[in-house]
Amino acid sequence: MSAEPDLVALLPIIDHQPRNPALFFQALTHGSTGISPDYQRLEFLGDRVLGMVIAELLYTRFPKAAEGQMSAFLNRLVSRESCAEIARTCKLGPLIRLGKQARDDGGAGSTNILGDVVEALIGALYVDGGLDAARAFIERHWADRIGAISEAPRHPKSELQEWAAARNRKTPVYTLLRKSGPDHDLRFTVQVEIKGLGSAEATGTSKQEAETLAAKQFLAEHGR
Amino acid sequence: MSAEPDLVALLPIIDHQPRNPALFFQALTHGSTGISPDYQRLEFLGDRVLGMVIAELLYTRFPKAAEGQMSAFLNRLVSRESCAEIARTCKLGPLIRLGKQARDDGGAGSTNILGDVVEALIGALYVDGGLDAARAFIERHWADRIGAISEAPRHPKSELQEWAAARNRKTPVYTLLRKSGPDHDLRFTVQVEIKGLGSAEATGTSKQEAETLAAKQFLAEHGR
Repeated sequence: MSAEPDLVALLPIIDHQPRNPALFFQALTHGSTGISPDYQRLEFLGDRVLGMVIAELLYTRFPKAAEGQMSAFLNRLVSRESCAEIARTCKLGPLIRLGKQARDDGGAGSTNILGDVVEALIGALYVDGGLDAARAFIERHWADRIGAISEAPRHPKSELQEWAAARNRKTPVYTLLRKSGPDHDLRFTVQVEIKGLGSAEATGTSKQEAETLAAKQFLAEHGR
Repeated sequence: MSAEPDLVALLPIIDHQPRNPALFFQALTHGSTGISPDYQRLEFLGDRVLGMVIAELLYTRFPKAAEGQMSAFLNRLVSRESCAEIARTCKLGPLIRLGKQARDDGGAGSTNILGDVVEALIGALYVDGGLDAARAFIERHWADRIGAISEAPRHPKSELQEWAAARNRKTPVYTLLRKSGPDHDLRFTVQVEIKGLGSAEATGTSKQEAETLAAKQFLAEHGR
């Protein structure tokens, strides 16, 4: 088992003076150590704190965005992968307490564990310093990602994929329905379907263009 | 389309004096009215506020509960059905603005719409009065449900079902593996499996008992 986590190294990451340091030890403790409590309860709480704070940031920052678009943004921002990338940027891995086997297996670099620990730290900040402490951490570490969203309009196919994921649906399926027109001026008609949600069709001068237009059409018909 | 919603009738439900009444009109406005904005953006926000506040209440109230158990409680408490029941208890239906067709189709009694409006009201309270206003609403309207949880231990089969749902897995499948022993003293051995998560076995004096024990065994082995 690893030594006591290094709270001094954690301070610049959380930018908060812990009232109850035990909460932050707990947030850095993986179940494989056998130490109880591990980070799971804090991760449960932190996951919901993160969701709410990101929802609020999106609500405020994109006053005209439809609910579907905000959901897609939110799912991307709070994904395990996003949380793990933030953990890597902060170099959190070496601070996590792992059992020997989990450490030998590379647990300190695992996307699941890194993502969990970021959420657990948010939970610890919420319990220790209230919503303001948690929000300050999230605003600081998510600022670049939220900034990038507003500047990069997404490809309609990516947007539709996220739209479906936000509704717990399967990935959109594109089917070429027909090619028409003379060889020098072909037209491709594509259908996109999301099982249980509906379908849309569009025609373009290439298969790729028809797919893009069909995704746009789907979003227009079924609401973003 | 319905008339302006009745804020006077809403006041005892929200127990909050709106600073910005437009937010509460919006929370009561369904998309079928054609009025923009409708409740969707507030519902997006309120959904996450509700999740966080319930997570915090569970975290505080059940200091020993494992993450899996808290997730199961949370999913039940924030379900569309729970929100809709609260809306029915508060008699929210008649206050919702619906398009004529949606009203004729019984929209004011629809579980989806009632659940959405409760979440949208939580969103409006959060924007208008901050976390304290939203939390007060949730604590008041969810008190009985949270109280009931702590007093009614659930059946292991229900608990396992919720545990699987919390992980986006299929419902547990129970298979009778064998009957053994003499006719007057039969033993039933049952396997329960959750696809992708694992399985467990148990033996009892009836199929029902073996299933209950297998569910308990699964939860014990795979963590609540």
